[in-house]
Amino acid sequence: MDMLTFSMDEKRTVPLYRQLYEYIKKEIRVGNFEFNTKLPSKRKLSSYLKISQNTIQSAYDQLIEEGYIIPVARKGFFVNRLDNILSLDLKFVEKHIKEEDELQNLSYDFSYHGVDHDSFPFSTWRKITKEAINEYDRDILKPGSSQGSSSLRISLAKYLRQSRGVNCTAEEIVISSGTESLFQILIQLLGQEYVYGIENPGYEKLNLLFKSNNSNFKTINIDMKGMKIEDIEGSEADILCITPAHQFPLGGIMPINRRIKILNWAYENENRYIIEDDYDSEFKYSGKPIPALCGLDTYGKVIYMGSLSKSLSPSIRVSYMVLPELLLKKYREKLSFIVCPVPTIDQNVLQKFIEDGHFERHINRMRNIYKRKREILVDELSSMKDKIEIVGADAGLHLLLRIKNGMSEEDLVRKAHEVGVGVYAISKYYYDKTSLDKVPTVLLGYASMADQSIRMAVKRLVEVWFPHIKDY
Amino acid sequence: MDMLTFSMDEKRTVPLYRQLYEYIKKEIRVGNFEFNTKLPSKRKLSSYLKISQNTIQSAYDQLIEEGYIIPVARKGFFVNRLDNILSLDLKFVEKHIKEEDELQNLSYDFSYHGVDHDSFPFSTWRKITKEAINEYDRDILKPGSSQGSSSLRISLAKYLRQSRGVNCTAEEIVISSGTESLFQILIQLLGQEYVYGIENPGYEKLNLLFKSNNSNFKTINIDMKGMKIEDIEGSEADILCITPAHQFPLGGIMPINRRIKILNWAYENENRYIIEDDYDSEFKYSGKPIPALCGLDTYGKVIYMGSLSKSLSPSIRVSYMVLPELLLKKYREKLSFIVCPVPTIDQNVLQKFIEDGHFERHINRMRNIYKRKREILVDELSSMKDKIEIVGADAGLHLLLRIKNGMSEEDLVRKAHEVGVGVYAISKYYYDKTSLDKVPTVLLGYASMADQSIRMAVKRLVEVWFPHIKDY
Repeated sequence: MDMLTFSMDEKRTVPLYRQLYEYIKKEIRVGNFEFNTKLPSKRKLSSYLKISQNTIQSAYDQLIEEGYIIPVARKGFFVNRLDNILSLDLKFVEKHIKEEDELQNLSYDFSYHGVDHDSFPFSTWRKITKEAINEYDRDILKPGSSQGSSSLRISLAKYLRQSRGVNCTAEEIVISSGTESLFQILIQLLGQEYVYGIENPGYEKLNLLFKSNNSNFKTINIDMKGMKIEDIEGSEADILCITPAHQFPLGGIMPINRRIKILNWAYENENRYIIEDDYDSEFKYSGKPIPALCGLDTYGKVIYMGSLSKSLSPSIRVSYMVLPELLLKKYREKLSFIVCPVPTIDQNVLQKFIEDGHFERHINRMRNIYKRKREILVDELSSMKDKIEIVGADAGLHLLLRIKNGMSEEDLVRKAHEVGVGVYAISKYYYDKTSLDKVPTVLLGYASMADQSIRMAVKRLVEVWFPHIKDY
Repeated sequence: MDMLTFSMDEKRTVPLYRQLYEYIKKEIRVGNFEFNTKLPSKRKLSSYLKISQNTIQSAYDQLIEEGYIIPVARKGFFVNRLDNILSLDLKFVEKHIKEEDELQNLSYDFSYHGVDHDSFPFSTWRKITKEAINEYDRDILKPGSSQGSSSLRISLAKYLRQSRGVNCTAEEIVISSGTESLFQILIQLLGQEYVYGIENPGYEKLNLLFKSNNSNFKTINIDMKGMKIEDIEGSEADILCITPAHQFPLGGIMPINRRIKILNWAYENENRYIIEDDYDSEFKYSGKPIPALCGLDTYGKVIYMGSLSKSLSPSIRVSYMVLPELLLKKYREKLSFIVCPVPTIDQNVLQKFIEDGHFERHINRMRNIYKRKREILVDELSSMKDKIEIVGADAGLHLLLRIKNGMSEEDLVRKAHEVGVGVYAISKYYYDKTSLDKVPTVLLGYASMADQSIRMAVKRLVEVWFPHIKDY
């Protein structure tokens, strides 16, 4: 090939060298310039196209770098061999996958997820964040340490010791983004030989998580005191995942006796561990908070897990766990390559928020707010009191209703949805449906509902669940 | 037991009910109050201790709730049965594990990690963040959607189409926190049957990640064009993890021919995929950026992966991948329970930062800054030019030095450390040391070094590596 017929557009903002590059590239890719074709020399093309040799050099350089042409010393530039898929990418495949429609069009949603929006400390959070984005902090752009910032871990350790009776040091804490991330780390840390025992009913994501990680797990039935010891023993489980402070979703608090039995079970075999998920223990509305199970453990068998999803916001994505000494050692040997997923600025903000006492004040304030919401809910539900039973300790951010009106769980949920109220069938939390309660039961979370919304929503529920109650 | 001998301290700030509760609990736990012991009635104890029955009721209630005592109707309160580990937790085990000392005491560190601190857009970031912490945004405290906020994904899709030639839509993007998190998702998504092929030498964490997830992987040798096709074919790998835009750490750019060969390899078998890690492609200092390999793929075989660790900061913890249609479908079926680990506020900040053009301006600015740093480094190294060879394309944030002064890599690194300069032996990136380059080679990252620091550091390197060069 001696010359190129190439129509330049000098008015285009695209530089000439790039127009030339794109033209040649296209011709090679559609097969017009075949393998081993010699391109015009820079000198000839320059005088032909009336553009500088430098421009041509730039275009050729780019083509060489991307492999389209090959320079051969003292011979010139040759088209490279391209395999036979070249024209495929010229087809444009319209990709269109609809996002799952997550909106349910509910007026009132007793979803378990979410917190009270109006009580989030926006101005404090804004002020601390503004201060944390600080050009004089030389560490702020560095990738963080694997377990999370040590100052945040010191603050968390202090909080856990004082508020939850967890006897831990900052060194033992691993910070991550959500309970799932912590489980993801633990699955890697403990290895795949073990069988996990999870509560039935329980947190609906745990089985998905173990499944997607190819981990063995067994569901273990619970009563209102927690996992039944005989079921644990018959399960082959090595590692129990439990919620002793406030069982999710049934709401039971594990009494000391069961706690001790479960610890003893763990002490019987060196492969056994207990994962204590203390997910909403900040919210207990009567009596003193019950210390974490972890505080009773003296042989390093309990992995304590907590999160800010309930106490602050699920959108903050911060969780933490306390590793027993042996597992901490293993973490440092095997997993210290993991970078803490929480952004450094966010860790600094949270540290300051805790250290300055805002976190404690926030929790104390929220405890009163949620207590009030719970009271409103229970009070409103009282009009149905002969036909319903409220289940779950005076704690957390949800309760259960056992309803005896002849409707199935499915009916109850559907009827509620028909009047724009979201409630959740308990059967969804049962992995093993054979142990399902005979009485239809629904879960109502109230954290994100306004007081007045709770009242309005319950009125609608009464109307559709108990249409014969007239005097309400 | 008819009565309790209990010394109250009315001056203590601890409420009386709690003092009583703690006293009884302690007596039960150390074994002084045995199983089935009957506690004094509220009335009797009240008149004995001269405290109200309500106070006693509160203490007993707490003890009942925690399971220490059992109320028996019309009989009274009895001590519960506790197993035999009770006193163990009274021992205090001092736990003290030293944090690994990560400080290396270097004056100048050519670490590959980190970015230029002084050029981070602190004031813009602060302003946008301040605006993002917005009480009128009702979604800000909700747990985010699994793939990340759709507005951020729309902005990222636009950016990827324009800047990287990735033909993608927002629906196909999954946002996570760091490259490791993306690989963690992919390992779950693709399943454990597959064999991953990773570049040798390559990103040092990949093998750790696959190992800790029990995934099979093979190392595949590379030349300056990328993985060798014959080595791929001999490897049994199903899924290749490659860095075509700028191989890490060798710095080669994969030419079009090799790209097409690798795509064709993937097209031969339905189980095959290519993971394209486009980690620092924003920084190319000559020629036009080379579009992503993903842009050539028409059969949905390339998983494109990017991160803000180099373009913005590793402490931001944001990465993203583009899933081919089939894998996206599988993700939605199997993994949509995963919550995006990036905090909602951070996603909103980033979206605004990209949408308002700050991101593009920042990258363009950084490209010039890093180009200048690279030029300073290359220029300073020129005094050693007969004895060293600079390897790696004119791109990215690091380069390699092949050094022929008779020293081993270990010597080179040690000598540099002795004068307070951090450089990194290339052998650390070789999983399979048999293919190691014969010439000792070190890696120098320059992103986080100030111009003057680069000059000072190279002077020190010359002094210890080439003490005979006098005229420098």
